[in-house]
Amino acid sequence: MISNKNILIAQGGGPTNVINMSLVSIIQEEKKLKSSVIGSLNGVNGIINNNFVNLNKISKNDLKIISQTPGAALGSTRDKPDKKYCLEILKVLKRKKISKFYYIGGNDSSDSLRIISEYARRIEYDVQCIHIPKTIDNDLVSNDHTPGFGSAAKYVAQLFSGINYDVKSLPGVYLGIVMGRHAGFLTASSALLKKNKRDGPHLIYLPEFAFSSQSFLKNIKQIFNKYGRCVIAVSEGIQNKNKKLISQEISKTQEYDAHGNIQLSGSGSLGDFLANKIKTKLKLPRVRADTLGYPQRSFLGSTSEVDQKEAFEIGKFAVRKSRQVISSFSAGIKERKILSRPYKVLFTINSLAEVAGQTKVMSKKFYNYKQNFITKEFVNYALPLIGKKIINTKSII
Amino acid sequence: MISNKNILIAQGGGPTNVINMSLVSIIQEEKKLKSSVIGSLNGVNGIINNNFVNLNKISKNDLKIISQTPGAALGSTRDKPDKKYCLEILKVLKRKKISKFYYIGGNDSSDSLRIISEYARRIEYDVQCIHIPKTIDNDLVSNDHTPGFGSAAKYVAQLFSGINYDVKSLPGVYLGIVMGRHAGFLTASSALLKKNKRDGPHLIYLPEFAFSSQSFLKNIKQIFNKYGRCVIAVSEGIQNKNKKLISQEISKTQEYDAHGNIQLSGSGSLGDFLANKIKTKLKLPRVRADTLGYPQRSFLGSTSEVDQKEAFEIGKFAVRKSRQVISSFSAGIKERKILSRPYKVLFTINSLAEVAGQTKVMSKKFYNYKQNFITKEFVNYALPLIGKKIINTKSII
Repeated sequence: MISNKNILIAQGGGPTNVINMSLVSIIQEEKKLKSSVIGSLNGVNGIINNNFVNLNKISKNDLKIISQTPGAALGSTRDKPDKKYCLEILKVLKRKKISKFYYIGGNDSSDSLRIISEYARRIEYDVQCIHIPKTIDNDLVSNDHTPGFGSAAKYVAQLFSGINYDVKSLPGVYLGIVMGRHAGFLTASSALLKKNKRDGPHLIYLPEFAFSSQSFLKNIKQIFNKYGRCVIAVSEGIQNKNKKLISQEISKTQEYDAHGNIQLSGSGSLGDFLANKIKTKLKLPRVRADTLGYPQRSFLGSTSEVDQKEAFEIGKFAVRKSRQVISSFSAGIKERKILSRPYKVLFTINSLAEVAGQTKVMSKKFYNYKQNFITKEFVNYALPLIGKKIINTKSII
Repeated sequence: MISNKNILIAQGGGPTNVINMSLVSIIQEEKKLKSSVIGSLNGVNGIINNNFVNLNKISKNDLKIISQTPGAALGSTRDKPDKKYCLEILKVLKRKKISKFYYIGGNDSSDSLRIISEYARRIEYDVQCIHIPKTIDNDLVSNDHTPGFGSAAKYVAQLFSGINYDVKSLPGVYLGIVMGRHAGFLTASSALLKKNKRDGPHLIYLPEFAFSSQSFLKNIKQIFNKYGRCVIAVSEGIQNKNKKLISQEISKTQEYDAHGNIQLSGSGSLGDFLANKIKTKLKLPRVRADTLGYPQRSFLGSTSEVDQKEAFEIGKFAVRKSRQVISSFSAGIKERKILSRPYKVLFTINSLAEVAGQTKVMSKKFYNYKQNFITKEFVNYALPLIGKKIINTKSII
C-alpha cells in the first residue's frame, strides 16, 4: 500500500542539544524502509501552513552534521493545537496520505499528539502518531529520564564545577539560576561534579520543595561562616509553601514584565532579587547572581555522548516498534527500579495518554530537604547520563 | 647565593581558565633551577597576612591536574596596594629573602607590581618583579593578545553558535550580555563561529563605539524584518556618546545597587533593561536576555588548547628571560603586524611601566560601526586563538 510509505516528522517545544539525533535516526531508519519522508517546519505549525521539506534527499554526510547540531533542525513551535487546529492538521495529513507522524517533543508535544490521534480515530483515519521524547527538564512521566537532559545536565555540572574554582579564587556568594520549570532535575545536576563537601554548590533549591527566604538566608550565612564562601544553585521555578512561584512575587513588586506574564527564562530578575536580599540582609561580600539561560539547552560543545546515543537509538527503536504495533504510542526509556551500576538503557513504549501533559518531578529519595542538597541516590541516577568525565581538577587552597 | 633561589609566585585579579597553566609552568621551570618556590595565597594579600604555601612539594601528577583546573589555584585578590601596603610587602619579601616575585595577573596586578618594584629600588632591595599577563578581557597594552582570552572567546563563540540554532528553532530576539569591561574583544568573539549572514549574532555592540538606544532599536527591527529573528551580542561596558555607562543609567533609574556601585557582572540588569526596551518599543515576540556571567572565565571544558599552550609557554619564557635580564619586566605576546596565517606566537618582554594600569581597546579596523558588526580582520586576528573547531554544524531551515 503506497500510503504506508508516506512519513511525516516534526519537532516541537524547546529545542535541545540532541533533538536532531532523534530526527536523523528516524530519517535514516525510514529511508531503509524505502519510505517517502517529509518534515514539517516549525512543528505542527508547518502542517497547517503547508511548510514541508523533503527529507529523503539530504545526503548522508549532511545528516551526520545535522545530527550534531544544537536546536531543532526543522524549527520548532510553542503552538498548542485546539480542536479546530487538530482537524486542520488531520485534513492535511489525509491529503498527503501520511501513515506515520513522528513528533519529537516534550509533554506539551505529546499532548498535542494525543489529541490529534484521538480525532483521527473519531474520523476513522488510520494514522500512527508516534511521540519521541525530548526535554532538558527531564519531567516526562513513565520515563527513567529523557533525551536532552543528559547534555543539559552536563553543561550545568561543568559550569558549577568551574564556578566552584572561580569562587574559591575570589571568595563571595554565587547564585546560579537554573532552568527546569517545575522539575528540579537540572538544578540538582549542578552538584554532579562536586568532589568534596567544601566544594560548591553548597546549597540547592528546587521547585518541588517549599522555598523560604528566611531559611535560605540562614543557610547561606551558615555555609559562609564555615567555608568563607557559598555557591548556590536555585531552580527558576522555586515556590513558597503556598505553591506560589517566587518569580511571581518579584513580578508583583518590581513589575519586570508589562504583560503580567511570568517569564522564567531569559531574564535575570529572580537572580538579582535573591542577590539583593543576600546583600541587604546578610551584608556579605561579592554577592553575584548568574541566570544560566538558554545556553543550558543549546551550548555547542558540552553534549553528553550518552545522551546523544540514546536520542539516536530511541529514534531507531520507535521506527522498528512502529512496524510491530499498529496503534499510536510514545517511545520511552524504561525506568530503573534499582539504581545499580553499570548503567544500561532499555527502551519501551507507553500510551500517549499516559505521558501527555503530565509533569514528573524529583522524588524525595533524590533530595535531602534538611540539608538543602541532593542525595547519593541522585548522583547514582544522573551521573551516568552526562557521559564520561572530560577533565580532572584540583586546587591548591 | 642562597637568596637567588627563593622564588615567590602569586595570582591576582579575575581568574581565567588557563591562569594555572602559567603557574604550573613557572613552578616546573624554577624547580629545574633548584629554586625554593613558595606561593602566596590570595595574591598580594597572602604576603602581608603571611599565608604561604610550599610549591616544591606538589607532585608532577598533581601539577598536571592543577594546570587544567579553572580558577586561580593559589587564590586571587582584588586588593590594590597603596604605599603602606607595598612597604609591608617588601618587608616580608626581604625577610623571606625573595629574589624573584612572579605575579600572574591583568593590568591592575601589573600596576601593583610596578609600584612594588619602584619601592624596592628606592630601598635598594634587589628583587626582580615579573608580571605574567592573564585576562579574559584581552585589554593589556603592548600585547597582541593575552593568555585567558582565547578560552573565554571560545566559550562565547560556542555559546552564540548554539544560540543561533536555538533562536532559529523558536524565532525571536535574543540578547547576550558579554564581559570585557571597557574592551570589546570578548563580545566581538561572539561571531567567530558564525557561518553565514543569516546566522546570529546579527548585531554586536561594544564599549569602544558609542551606543544609541534609537539606532539599537532601529537595527534590531531591520534585522528582524529581514530574517524573522535577531541575535545580538552586547558588551557589559557599553557607553553612550558622552562616555557614560548604560549600566549607570539603569542604576540611577532602577537602583539595583544600594551602595551606588556599578556592578557590571553578576547581575542581569543591563540585559533586562534592554530586553524591556525592545519589548515595549518594538513589540517583537520572544524577547530574551541572558547575561553570560562568570562561566565566561571559568567554564570547565571549553578551554582553547592554543590558549592553554600559550599560558604555559609564557611562564616558561618568563623564567628563562629572568636569567638573561636583571631588571623587572612584564612578559608579553609580541604584536602581529600583519594578520597573516599561519598564526604563530612570539614572546617578548615589556617594561612594567609600559603595561601597568593601561587599557587596550578594540581598534577601528576590527569593527564596522555602520553595520554594528566585526570585520574580517577581527576574525583573522581572533579565530586562531580559540583553537581547533570541535563540531561542524548545519540546519535544515
